[in-house]
Amino acid sequence: MQKAVLETLQAMRQKSPLVQCITNLVVMQVNANVLLAAGASPLMAHAQEELEDLVKIINALVLNIGTLDKHTIASMNVAGDFANKYKKPVVLDPVGAGASRLRTETALSILRTVKPCIVRGNGSEIMALAGELGENKGVDSTKGSLEVKEQAKRLARNFQTVVSVSGEVDMITDGTQFAYVQGGDPLMTLVTGIGCSATAVTGACMAVAKTPFIGAVSAMALFAGAGEKAGKKCQGPGSFLPCFIDELYSADYADAAKRVTME
Amino acid sequence: MQKAVLETLQAMRQKSPLVQCITNLVVMQVNANVLLAAGASPLMAHAQEELEDLVKIINALVLNIGTLDKHTIASMNVAGDFANKYKKPVVLDPVGAGASRLRTETALSILRTVKPCIVRGNGSEIMALAGELGENKGVDSTKGSLEVKEQAKRLARNFQTVVSVSGEVDMITDGTQFAYVQGGDPLMTLVTGIGCSATAVTGACMAVAKTPFIGAVSAMALFAGAGEKAGKKCQGPGSFLPCFIDELYSADYADAAKRVTME
Amino acid sequence: MQKAVLETLQAMRQKSPLVQCITNLVVMQVNANVLLAAGASPLMAHAQEELEDLVKIINALVLNIGTLDKHTIASMNVAGDFANKYKKPVVLDPVGAGASRLRTETALSILRTVKPCIVRGNGSEIMALAGELGENKGVDSTKGSLEVKEQAKRLARNFQTVVSVSGEVDMITDGTQFAYVQGGDPLMTLVTGIGCSATAVTGACMAVAKTPFIGAVSAMALFAGAGEKAGKKCQGPGSFLPCFIDELYSADYADAAKRVTME
Repeated sequence: MQKAVLETLQAMRQKSPLVQCITNLVVMQVNANVLLAAGASPLMAHAQEELEDLVKIINALVLNIGTLDKHTIASMNVAGDFANKYKKPVVLDPVGAGASRLRTETALSILRTVKPCIVRGNGSEIMALAGELGENKGVDSTKGSLEVKEQAKRLARNFQTVVSVSGEVDMITDGTQFAYVQGGDPLMTLVTGIGCSATAVTGACMAVAKTPFIGAVSAMALFAGAGEKAGKKCQGPGSFLPCFIDELYSADYADAAKRVTME
Repeated sequence: MQKAVLETLQAMRQKSPLVQCITNLVVMQVNANVLLAAGASPLMAHAQEELEDLVKIINALVLNIGTLDKHTIASMNVAGDFANKYKKPVVLDPVGAGASRLRTETALSILRTVKPCIVRGNGSEIMALAGELGENKGVDSTKGSLEVKEQAKRLARNFQTVVSVSGEVDMITDGTQFAYVQGGDPLMTLVTGIGCSATAVTGACMAVAKTPFIGAVSAMALFAGAGEKAGKKCQGPGSFLPCFIDELYSADYADAAKRVTME
Repeated sequence: MQKAVLETLQAMRQKSPLVQCITNLVVMQVNANVLLAAGASPLMAHAQEELEDLVKIINALVLNIGTLDKHTIASMNVAGDFANKYKKPVVLDPVGAGASRLRTETALSILRTVKPCIVRGNGSEIMALAGELGENKGVDSTKGSLEVKEQAKRLARNFQTVVSVSGEVDMITDGTQFAYVQGGDPLMTLVTGIGCSATAVTGACMAVAKTPFIGAVSAMALFAGAGEKAGKKCQGPGSFLPCFIDELYSADYADAAKRVTME
């Protein structure tokens, strides 16, 4: 797995996949900057009138329900259909699933109809999607990734997808295999958009990886390495973000790969 | 008052209130990051379909009309009604009131129907809401806070609310008492979203303070302290923002409290 | 030309023109911060109900189609009409023209009906508008500015506008004269919103310049100087942005002007 992660991260830098994000209004700038720093090309667009033109030329589609409303839900569904038509892989970030019925139901509906290759969320979101309502406090997680292992496995099997759960230790499963990623920094939970950006980079890695599972693991490994280094250099959550983007840009892929263990 | 400010800031850090912002598109990221650094939890959501679910779980609602249109106005009204139903306190930031009739009228309509506990704006905005059209240049203020003392008092009494006016010296009044906050840095006027973030943190403080007046003063005191320190460390308006967020994160609450004087 | 650039940059700082941006959702914050650092005042607003009130008080209007949909297209058209009615100059940034028909057609429609004084884009976008579809990869350019000289000239003549093309060397033409600007840093292509911010500052310079051509050149000269300095001081694309904004704030206008040569 470590070799596959290393190759995936190198391929992302070399091929610069074009990643379309229909994402929430809070994180658009940071998602685009993180994708650029990681070696990918961002495309932030949601107008239904241009979705077919754009989905044709992209390498991956990222759907993020962080500030969803009926217009973005419609765009996500249309983009998802085109992604299936043109065989472009899709990642879903179910931001805040469990906090409102609209979010939980929208995420489940996308899982059923668009059939994303990867779902990347935090422990509370994965738990909500697996049908077990935890005490979800807004969009931040109250559940660690390891606490939701069974739910992640069930979700992966039910929807034949890869589930990537961020936390103190990240956990990724395709329903059979389990990978764990060590690293990161507690400040990552105090900067908005870091999780959503991990999803965006998951899209970029998936576009060049041999399997969605390897893609999902590669993105979390890159974030764990860059996050840990940024946490040591910065002065707080404000300076963390520029440091983190700098670290993504000059990331040590071998170090990132070493953070991965398989169960 | 200084003791109450100190206790409020400590309580915000300890209780981490969940603050929902229906805010303008320019400042969403900085508002969320500032809330996180100050110790609160942000929730940025506006879809009418999920407002009742979300307002039930929040501790404060922040309405900011910076990039309002008919969709956001409708969301603000619905969210405001639920906030009243579920007894959640509301803060209003009347960004650009006076610059267009739409903004002035929307802000006044929210004041009348949603009845926010606190209105936080700059001198020009407060003047416009008090019925005296100044020379409002866009969304930046041409009036200092002390120049609009009578207008702020009248506005507070008319709408039974607290009025918090930012400026070289911040002034907060409930129509009877007046508090003043010293500090900050001129660079704060050269970074977009600092004022809107002060409103967001006002929401977080209000959620844990004994009175809205104490909450409003506490937020401005925190900003005055962190802003002054960031202004000394940074190299210009670009590095001010990360510095400011770092300073909010490691803020000296006793120093913040000492910046407050009562009339 | 160098003297005219110097005077324009000084006038922007002194007069602080109010620049309304109807721009894409990704770059709103950075555009506003860059305008403030450069000495101008940003106004980010798109609601049709307030466009007439606002366009009356602004000094320039910037239209950017980066995340266009039918609502923003309608707002751009209405704002453009008011700009013509009240004789306010308009700049267009045709983000992603060529990547979708919607973008190409919207940009051409604005060129025909709103008649902007300046179009500022990258090589691929200018090529698409000149009727020659290149291999446009999303919103990033695959064409250098000098490769599209003939297309820029034709576009400027056809629409009686100034065409400003960013690239390793920036090229600006009014269809007769050609100016070139040296400087900048490769990191500028790895930070989202730098190009869009150049368009916003082009609006601010245009508002105070003797001619749109001088305004367009002045903005690119300012960016070339600040970008080059920021590139030397920063650690990567994450720290580039705060450095760049700091450099804009303390820019050496004489140095900026010296980067301009005429053909």
